[in-house]
Amino acid sequence: MQGAVLHGTRDIRYEERAEPTIVEPTDAIISLSATCICGSDLWPYRGINPVKSPVPMGHEYCGIIEDVGRDVRSIRPGQFVIGSFFASDNTCPHCRAGFQTSCQHREPVVGAQAPRVRIPLADGTLVSTRDVPAADVVPSMLALSDVMGTGWFAADAANVKPGATVAVVGDGAVGLLAVLSAKQMGAARIIAMSRHESRQKLARDFGATDIVTERGDEGVERIKALTRGIGADSVLECVGTQESMQQAVRSTRPGGSIGYVGLPHGVTLDGADLFYRHVRLLGGPAPVRRYLPALIDLVLKGTINPGKVFDLILPLSSVADGYRAMDERRAIKTLLRP
Amino acid sequence: MQGAVLHGTRDIRYEERAEPTIVEPTDAIISLSATCICGSDLWPYRGINPVKSPVPMGHEYCGIIEDVGRDVRSIRPGQFVIGSFFASDNTCPHCRAGFQTSCQHREPVVGAQAPRVRIPLADGTLVSTRDVPAADVVPSMLALSDVMGTGWFAADAANVKPGATVAVVGDGAVGLLAVLSAKQMGAARIIAMSRHESRQKLARDFGATDIVTERGDEGVERIKALTRGIGADSVLECVGTQESMQQAVRSTRPGGSIGYVGLPHGVTLDGADLFYRHVRLLGGPAPVRRYLPALIDLVLKGTINPGKVFDLILPLSSVADGYRAMDERRAIKTLLRP
Repeated sequence: MQGAVLHGTRDIRYEERAEPTIVEPTDAIISLSATCICGSDLWPYRGINPVKSPVPMGHEYCGIIEDVGRDVRSIRPGQFVIGSFFASDNTCPHCRAGFQTSCQHREPVVGAQAPRVRIPLADGTLVSTRDVPAADVVPSMLALSDVMGTGWFAADAANVKPGATVAVVGDGAVGLLAVLSAKQMGAARIIAMSRHESRQKLARDFGATDIVTERGDEGVERIKALTRGIGADSVLECVGTQESMQQAVRSTRPGGSIGYVGLPHGVTLDGADLFYRHVRLLGGPAPVRRYLPALIDLVLKGTINPGKVFDLILPLSSVADGYRAMDERRAIKTLLRP
Repeated sequence: MQGAVLHGTRDIRYEERAEPTIVEPTDAIISLSATCICGSDLWPYRGINPVKSPVPMGHEYCGIIEDVGRDVRSIRPGQFVIGSFFASDNTCPHCRAGFQTSCQHREPVVGAQAPRVRIPLADGTLVSTRDVPAADVVPSMLALSDVMGTGWFAADAANVKPGATVAVVGDGAVGLLAVLSAKQMGAARIIAMSRHESRQKLARDFGATDIVTERGDEGVERIKALTRGIGADSVLECVGTQESMQQAVRSTRPGGSIGYVGLPHGVTLDGADLFYRHVRLLGGPAPVRRYLPALIDLVLKGTINPGKVFDLILPLSSVADGYRAMDERRAIKTLLRP
């Protein structure tokens, strides 16, 4: 089969790769209904995380089970499934505490930008639907595999409550779905920080009540002005730079919370500064598995439509065009059809 | 009157100071029943926070109201009161959110190591008891002014729940009262980190189930070993150094929480490390005012006896001996009688 392989900075190729096979008796092989490109794929694509040898890309997936190992109990060939970007056993103490991305046996899913992918720990990782969903629902199902669950975790980690004032730093797909998540959790006011008109529009569609176009000190001042000098109850940090984290810390009210899901690159926090600001912090790789059953229900009921973040749909063979469009911020997120 | 004044490193003097007077119409003057020396007083005493000019010391207090300004409504002369080390209006948005130490009008209380002290924002800051408490209850009442409320905040910020496994970093008075707080909140297992026999004993009296004498990497390994490799649900950081904070971060289970109340000195946190550890953080100057009514009840019912941390009682005129004993770790905490 052919799939996406990153060879070096901005050198992504659609080329021959080995067929995935059952390696462990707990594995499953999925035939992908759709896959996509993640904001985090851009870190190695841009050379910020250097690539030493060719890497098969892709960790977001949904599709039909083709084969399962002999120890797999809860799923069977023919079922439609979704799973997280980290495989987890869903039975260890960290999984039981709801932090499956810290599973004691976690394994990254790799090479999902391909027609088929191997998923380790299939029983713990995959959630099946009763029926194979209609084609128009597939983009929203695919979003649950990472980006929607990550936005949801940002809001959950930031302790968003009904009636709350929420600020979202970052207008990528995760930031936009963090807006949607805050709305679902009952936030009364959602301030989206964005300078791009198409993203502002989607943020408003998802529930943003205010848009702040300023960044840095000016962005913080705007949020303070919008909140009578108090700051936001919950701030959702969806970028991962020092600047964005500082913006989040300084926009939060004393006693408020930050949920941070942007992979931190060079971020350091000053202990005394956090201390005097009384800011609560929780972040990390989103435990998507925890949220999957509830989010699948919301998608199937039509309550949420996170697939709207895919504003570019390409055949898998055009994966390089998809990376380029996201790198140049022409696309929010690219869906790839195998 | 005479009171304690810090002139420079390890140069604390009991000397003539101006009588406090009503400056603002919202002030009160208290005649102190008892005062004490705080662990945080040792930072300037040791020259870690340099002293530029003579500073009246002391911020922990309880006693009898002598006089109030014309705008004070809720308390009157003759009442016994306790308040926090930060005065607060208790009406601003941050106070209403329970973070009175971030009050928009907060003012530090200064010069309480004296027979009398001025308390700003008396209505918001002070809590009165129905009766003047018996002398043997006064040490526990005094402890509520800072050290007990700070230990309680550590446990509250670290989200201690019934049945939880808790680790406490630091065996000063705050750490010991953090043990007591975790016990009150229903923790099933409380691991106190201490190398001093008398402090270990008090920790056990307050509810510690395990003592860890190791520090740094070895301390972390011990906590992991005691928790089947999982880590503690809640870690209470009561020191404020880089080493103690790292110990706290590394002893917490993924999805667990740290409450940090040691004033951070040179503490920096790596964003990516916190991210991958899934650790929740909240700290700051404890909003003692929030907890005062409930803690006063617990003391008056005899449920808690935080005054046990005072293992040295001196006349106020011997304040220099009190600092010396704490500096040399001969005393856990010194109570001073005016």
